[in-house]
Amino acid sequence: MTDRIRIGVLGASGYTGSDLVRLALRHPAMEIVTLTGATQAGRSMADVFPHLAFAPLPDLVTVDEVDWMAVDAVFCGLPHGTTQEIIAAIFAANPKAKVIDMSADFRLRNPETYREWYGHEHRALALQDEAVYGLTEHYRDAIARARLVACPGCYPTAALLALIPAVASGAAAPDDIVIDAKSGTTGAGRSAKQNLLLAEAGEGLSPYSIAAHRHAPEMEQELSVAAGRALTVSFTPHLIPMSRGELCTAYVKLSGGASAADLRAALASAYRDEPFVKVVAEDVIPKTQNVRGSNYVQIGVFADRIPGRAIIVSVIDNLVKGSAGQAIQNFNLMFGRVETEGLLQLPMFP
Amino acid sequence: MTDRIRIGVLGASGYTGSDLVRLALRHPAMEIVTLTGATQAGRSMADVFPHLAFAPLPDLVTVDEVDWMAVDAVFCGLPHGTTQEIIAAIFAANPKAKVIDMSADFRLRNPETYREWYGHEHRALALQDEAVYGLTEHYRDAIARARLVACPGCYPTAALLALIPAVASGAAAPDDIVIDAKSGTTGAGRSAKQNLLLAEAGEGLSPYSIAAHRHAPEMEQELSVAAGRALTVSFTPHLIPMSRGELCTAYVKLSGGASAADLRAALASAYRDEPFVKVVAEDVIPKTQNVRGSNYVQIGVFADRIPGRAIIVSVIDNLVKGSAGQAIQNFNLMFGRVETEGLLQLPMFP
Amino acid sequence: MTDRIRIGVLGASGYTGSDLVRLALRHPAMEIVTLTGATQAGRSMADVFPHLAFAPLPDLVTVDEVDWMAVDAVFCGLPHGTTQEIIAAIFAANPKAKVIDMSADFRLRNPETYREWYGHEHRALALQDEAVYGLTEHYRDAIARARLVACPGCYPTAALLALIPAVASGAAAPDDIVIDAKSGTTGAGRSAKQNLLLAEAGEGLSPYSIAAHRHAPEMEQELSVAAGRALTVSFTPHLIPMSRGELCTAYVKLSGGASAADLRAALASAYRDEPFVKVVAEDVIPKTQNVRGSNYVQIGVFADRIPGRAIIVSVIDNLVKGSAGQAIQNFNLMFGRVETEGLLQLPMFP
Amino acid sequence: MTDRIRIGVLGASGYTGSDLVRLALRHPAMEIVTLTGATQAGRSMADVFPHLAFAPLPDLVTVDEVDWMAVDAVFCGLPHGTTQEIIAAIFAANPKAKVIDMSADFRLRNPETYREWYGHEHRALALQDEAVYGLTEHYRDAIARARLVACPGCYPTAALLALIPAVASGAAAPDDIVIDAKSGTTGAGRSAKQNLLLAEAGEGLSPYSIAAHRHAPEMEQELSVAAGRALTVSFTPHLIPMSRGELCTAYVKLSGGASAADLRAALASAYRDEPFVKVVAEDVIPKTQNVRGSNYVQIGVFADRIPGRAIIVSVIDNLVKGSAGQAIQNFNLMFGRVETEGLLQLPMFP
Repeated sequence: MTDRIRIGVLGASGYTGSDLVRLALRHPAMEIVTLTGATQAGRSMADVFPHLAFAPLPDLVTVDEVDWMAVDAVFCGLPHGTTQEIIAAIFAANPKAKVIDMSADFRLRNPETYREWYGHEHRALALQDEAVYGLTEHYRDAIARARLVACPGCYPTAALLALIPAVASGAAAPDDIVIDAKSGTTGAGRSAKQNLLLAEAGEGLSPYSIAAHRHAPEMEQELSVAAGRALTVSFTPHLIPMSRGELCTAYVKLSGGASAADLRAALASAYRDEPFVKVVAEDVIPKTQNVRGSNYVQIGVFADRIPGRAIIVSVIDNLVKGSAGQAIQNFNLMFGRVETEGLLQLPMFP
Repeated sequence: MTDRIRIGVLGASGYTGSDLVRLALRHPAMEIVTLTGATQAGRSMADVFPHLAFAPLPDLVTVDEVDWMAVDAVFCGLPHGTTQEIIAAIFAANPKAKVIDMSADFRLRNPETYREWYGHEHRALALQDEAVYGLTEHYRDAIARARLVACPGCYPTAALLALIPAVASGAAAPDDIVIDAKSGTTGAGRSAKQNLLLAEAGEGLSPYSIAAHRHAPEMEQELSVAAGRALTVSFTPHLIPMSRGELCTAYVKLSGGASAADLRAALASAYRDEPFVKVVAEDVIPKTQNVRGSNYVQIGVFADRIPGRAIIVSVIDNLVKGSAGQAIQNFNLMFGRVETEGLLQLPMFP
Repeated sequence: MTDRIRIGVLGASGYTGSDLVRLALRHPAMEIVTLTGATQAGRSMADVFPHLAFAPLPDLVTVDEVDWMAVDAVFCGLPHGTTQEIIAAIFAANPKAKVIDMSADFRLRNPETYREWYGHEHRALALQDEAVYGLTEHYRDAIARARLVACPGCYPTAALLALIPAVASGAAAPDDIVIDAKSGTTGAGRSAKQNLLLAEAGEGLSPYSIAAHRHAPEMEQELSVAAGRALTVSFTPHLIPMSRGELCTAYVKLSGGASAADLRAALASAYRDEPFVKVVAEDVIPKTQNVRGSNYVQIGVFADRIPGRAIIVSVIDNLVKGSAGQAIQNFNLMFGRVETEGLLQLPMFP
Repeated sequence: MTDRIRIGVLGASGYTGSDLVRLALRHPAMEIVTLTGATQAGRSMADVFPHLAFAPLPDLVTVDEVDWMAVDAVFCGLPHGTTQEIIAAIFAANPKAKVIDMSADFRLRNPETYREWYGHEHRALALQDEAVYGLTEHYRDAIARARLVACPGCYPTAALLALIPAVASGAAAPDDIVIDAKSGTTGAGRSAKQNLLLAEAGEGLSPYSIAAHRHAPEMEQELSVAAGRALTVSFTPHLIPMSRGELCTAYVKLSGGASAADLRAALASAYRDEPFVKVVAEDVIPKTQNVRGSNYVQIGVFADRIPGRAIIVSVIDNLVKGSAGQAIQNFNLMFGRVETEGLLQLPMFP
């Protein structure tokens, strides 16, 4: 055990944090040495998350109580806006620490965009410059060298894995991209909100944050890189009566004479050697059921009825590939481990 | 009781038929005199649908056993392709009967389109000419005079109520309309299929019939009328882990300089006096939970992030306004009753 | 409208209150004149419960704002412990008012039992003496004459309808009755609690308040009446991943030489003329799906494997027969209306 | 890979078989060499279970096509009644093979009881004599020496783990034990049945096989051993609107002056060193959510309201500890592996 990498998980009392703990406990190279939870500090994890009672874990503490020199890696699963100063403090105390941030605090490279969407000035601009966007399949080398990785939001993960090669290859036009996304309720966190009660969110669905969700600028940032010029997307998420899982249906115009088959080939080529991202054949329809509980991604491409258009469907588990799993994938790269280590659990179905 | 209108329900062993029976039993002007169910003939409704055991009902018989002279109105909830010859036989036996068809058999006015999508020649072309498309709010007068009404599919009901005034008003462009629809599993009927099992369809979602669903030509037929020229739509439905409810998210380009507010105003104007269709204010998000079990419809209009685009969201209960309720609404018109009779149950929430 | 009975609903921002409003809006003899909601006062019902936006309703006010002389009947859906003084105030202001209480405040006739289970002295003992226990089928005459009716809890409704005739007939022994109950999450109310989130309560189940639920003394009070002597029950409720519906599985010893068939006959005889309570045949299994959204009750009786024992299964919709529906049934009796008025909606399935 | 244990899975197209494959693929000592599926033979597993598309697997074949000499261990997940002759044939072809049967075919030691409950004579009586009942915690040594292990049914697993130490210790009386069990729908298998559709089984619950379920004699067989004399149990399962998970609420009479705390201590003592079975403290309530997807078991003991009675609550994942996981636990013992190998995945929550 002494040569394991010592990790801390900030925000272990939320779903993202607890799913990271679930995976970390069985990761052969990790040793969990500290867990924080703001309102739950002082409680045992077995009390806060009884499904984790079967393994020994440190009790929850506050962030202030953590000895940063005692950790090699920190996973942050804190609410956005709270992480910037904490991460600055971590590096001040322990410059050799590596931080994998699952919050939104370092995802947007443009401070003005950050301010516009999050309502306040960014509080750690130098670190923002240093942070690497943690979409593993597209920033692998930079992640391996990084000290601070900003993992993508769940929706950007699903949407960008589908759309970056589509746009970068030129097969899909960068204009008028429509992203209709659907997510289970864990995406909204563990705070008790009326609209997330089983009695309210069960047996029904609705869109939310229509054309105004904070994950839109993140998608635009990365797709603009892929397109080589600025673009705007139409993005509307929907709340689905289930716990886990996320599906993006992206409607695009084909360009450069490409067919849907060409677009599919472009994606298949981009992900040919990827361990977690699979582009399915024409006759296979991605389902969130196919990836539940796993770090795997399925992407399918379909010709639209309107000539010259195509539909790209991608599915992830929002808590794994959409958050904790991708964070561990990045951790593995940052610490020189095999990228898939601790992440090969197969999807659980039913 | 003697002056009640005598009705028959064909296909009463399916969800559409049984929901019609549920509503018909409490309709003040209806008397249910015959119920058919192909494989269930000979059984009592209480046996086939125990929730209907609390009211007296005739046992299920086969279609061949029905005396068409004993019914004034026939509701058809049969699988598509089986209804054409039966309805022809009904009118041959009883020319004064009125038929409200909930199947797809008479919805498409162009026989070639029918053949293309349903794989066989239409078998009752004269009746097809006579049939009125039963989207009540847009064909009210013709329905009132009709002998045969072809009720819209559930997806066309939700999509067309949102899009016909949008296109007809000129506020939305008729090109590149993207309709991303979501439905509970009752839309797929009561036949035991593996993919509809709770263990398979629960806790997950997926699209199906991507850009290839039979409701697309129906939408195109009616939107082409609204636009004054032929158009094609992008339409992809998704199977949602819930029983009832349907939501359409339609992505449109604004035209003629219209804003999203103008588009909302056009819809609000179109439905100002409608008893069942409500255009909600800018700050209200339609949810299927808001209409469950009822004949009501909610439609919301939202500005998109991409300038010059808008998003229209509409919700219905797929078995009520999307099928049995709209059929009764049409029945009321055809028999000179108050249009809302028997249909004012409020949504059930939770 | 002027000769309608003017009603007020206290606690209209909860599930019990809103379901009462849903039913009252379509009740031919009721006019809703006032609605209260503590934290929601000042808001419209359409805002608090969008599914009720399709009918005109007064805005929510505080209890203090109500003019008690302007109402003929008051339905109370307030949290327990808050109702006693309010009802005393209502009668002080308007002695002719009739009150149908859906809270627990007047259900227990023994003030000591009340204090033991609710942790404080009863604050309206005289009214407690006057209150009639509102289990309609067993207190019909007294309810018709009452000014104050204390409607049973949802679990007692399901359990007592099954067990009172069983015990009173002598077919079931009063000792060692085991009641294993299962309820959807609406029984826990609309307050946002973590354990009721879809992500927590969905896809799983657990018992709660094991052998310590406040509905136990209510069952014991009424079963002791039926048995002619004091008894204690084993009662454990379970939280089921669904919104509505409640099922009681009661395990009893047969007595006096009775068989399960005798026990079934005793129940069938007791409810022979009841409009809402149906004892099903031996080969029919009650399901909550069979009564969802309705005021109906199904009860089945089955022989146990252990000789001399039987199992009684009863199902209700916890918000209708378990609360708002039974309250209206009592209202109908108290105001001399037909008992089933406004309550004949059939169950909604699926 | 050459020194891995070669396994075959019969019935890999069902839920039990596929969950075994899911776990076996990540078991360090197993190599899956053959998979059978009666109606699905010839198809790939990726086609039949898309969630398993992320790992290489042999295609499904029929049982007749299997070379039994090419396998060291066979897991049988076939429907009951079909397994006896197949297992006899396996041993005839390969006497060194070891068989872990997940069906009901070898669970009942008394052939008359088997015939009574399954409707035909047992077809492999000699093997029945040899078979060891695979409730790991209670037959560990015999399992380690066995060639044929008959894994318990899911309900017996949950019920017996709770009740064997209760009865064997003398703290609970062997008479009038009432077992009220609740299970998700996967327990009923993957065959498309109407009552298991999401639209039918969702949002509602019901008991089934009341006092007549085939798992009752299995419980009685083992509890009679524990009690030292024959006994009969009251056992009623309920179908819960969820996929996975099983909960038993057992109502018992205390005996020999034991308290509920004594009973809890007896269970805690019995399972003190068990890796998968945890007796929780008095203030913890077992939930199926706490063990989902894992081989873990939680058991809680509670005092009843009726003096001299207690309630034991146990939870498992019906597909893992209730079937595939327990089968692998037995495999590990039979092949001299560490008992927990391949089974330490933590529960997935939400």
